[in-house]
Amino acid sequence: MNSDGLFSQVRSKKSFLCIGLDSEFEKLPRFLQSNEKPQYDFNEAIILATHQLAIAYKLNTAFYEARGSQGWQDMKDTVNFIRSVNNNIFIIADAKRCDIGNSAELYARTFMDNLGFDAVTVSPYMGHDSVHPFLQRPDKWAIILAVTSNKGAEDYQFRRLQAHDELLFETVIKTGISWGTQDNIMFVTGATQPEMFSRIRKHAPNHFLLIPGVGTQGGNLKEVSHYGINSECGIIVNSSRSIIFADSTENFAQTAYQKSLELQKEMIGILMDHNLL
Amino acid sequence: MNSDGLFSQVRSKKSFLCIGLDSEFEKLPRFLQSNEKPQYDFNEAIILATHQLAIAYKLNTAFYEARGSQGWQDMKDTVNFIRSVNNNIFIIADAKRCDIGNSAELYARTFMDNLGFDAVTVSPYMGHDSVHPFLQRPDKWAIILAVTSNKGAEDYQFRRLQAHDELLFETVIKTGISWGTQDNIMFVTGATQPEMFSRIRKHAPNHFLLIPGVGTQGGNLKEVSHYGINSECGIIVNSSRSIIFADSTENFAQTAYQKSLELQKEMIGILMDHNLL
Repeated sequence: MNSDGLFSQVRSKKSFLCIGLDSEFEKLPRFLQSNEKPQYDFNEAIILATHQLAIAYKLNTAFYEARGSQGWQDMKDTVNFIRSVNNNIFIIADAKRCDIGNSAELYARTFMDNLGFDAVTVSPYMGHDSVHPFLQRPDKWAIILAVTSNKGAEDYQFRRLQAHDELLFETVIKTGISWGTQDNIMFVTGATQPEMFSRIRKHAPNHFLLIPGVGTQGGNLKEVSHYGINSECGIIVNSSRSIIFADSTENFAQTAYQKSLELQKEMIGILMDHNLL
Repeated sequence: MNSDGLFSQVRSKKSFLCIGLDSEFEKLPRFLQSNEKPQYDFNEAIILATHQLAIAYKLNTAFYEARGSQGWQDMKDTVNFIRSVNNNIFIIADAKRCDIGNSAELYARTFMDNLGFDAVTVSPYMGHDSVHPFLQRPDKWAIILAVTSNKGAEDYQFRRLQAHDELLFETVIKTGISWGTQDNIMFVTGATQPEMFSRIRKHAPNHFLLIPGVGTQGGNLKEVSHYGINSECGIIVNSSRSIIFADSTENFAQTAYQKSLELQKEMIGILMDHNLL
């Protein structure tokens, strides 16, 4: 899917919501934990309940790798299930990979070719050749960490560089943009750092931004939309735990639907305010 | 294992060699590729042939994840096999992980508790809370990327910061050191950047360094040892492809032994030159 396709999904679903399937085994409803494929079964129910409200799902690999081979299989089956429900949903491997060229190529092959993800998050520390393999496949995206939603973002991302008197994440955005196009590069820009959005949009006015941190981590949807939205929406806002773990009873999927609907209704208002619907 | 334990292994084996089990399926000898557990079988043969010459093995997760559940199982079985051969070998997950606190904790649990690795490589871009979980287990290590061996290292790692007029990787080392001890933090410092070693050793005179890039990537063992070695050795030099893929015939393990022996003999000379044997 390219950026036009994403914007078209936003308009058709009246949503720029990404649901994070951070389906940590220990946090699943008790009655699912003894299933043969507990993470997959949980995801299937969440997806069936929410797929009309979300344009994207994001699977953080940490939560699947923690269960070894079985978790890996559940991740793979989840991607296939999303595809079977709606082939236009954008599926992100939140893997934050980072490696030299030949290893990065293997990661790209793993997540994009073998598992069928549309996009992979990557850490920029190792530079161009560590990101390049993720940009070699039509309609597939590298999502580069720029400003993250955690406290540690301050440790390096906000360091001021001598060249151009700018912060490290600004350099990451400026150089990152030169490696690809608006159709294969986006940036992670945490919802907990809204004061950084004007700097981000100065360098990347047109690129899509993936914005995690709304919900449990404290980010505010209105605020990040105000600063981040552009004429083709240009933002995908992710929420994970506050949707999928809002309810640990047998109604968990129904509650996830309600929580997603609340966010989507707010998104309708925001899209209308910006004349995008 | 702590740093004394590592130095003790160096002296006992007269080696500071780490062998990188970058056991990419497509590069395995043809006659192994149809095996049920091809990566494991390959690793087993390499380990049996080389374990007396190496103090460490490093498994880059990219090459195992590329084969999904089966690759994950082969990685797990390889760690168990190394333990069964010699419980004093240091085993590194070259995973270069990087995530917010709760996800990083899952990665630490996966690689350190579930799979039994002694150490995990981590990318520093997300700062302290992304590394912290890897420092909470006795005798387990976080190995922080400082200077990597690829060309992209120049894109960000060598940027000059305004504070202290130093390069980004220097700040990574200085702050990284404050997060742990000489017994649970090391730094990745690529063999292809020997001119950076004096800066690295200025900030981290006593910490162990993991040095990849000798061999196929062009790093020179004598040169990196000259700049990197300290009074307790303080360096672990990794070589991967130039050992494990030196021969694709049925003699591959014997050839890996020969290649390892050549490096280990050179290491004996270096250790003696520095009065460490």
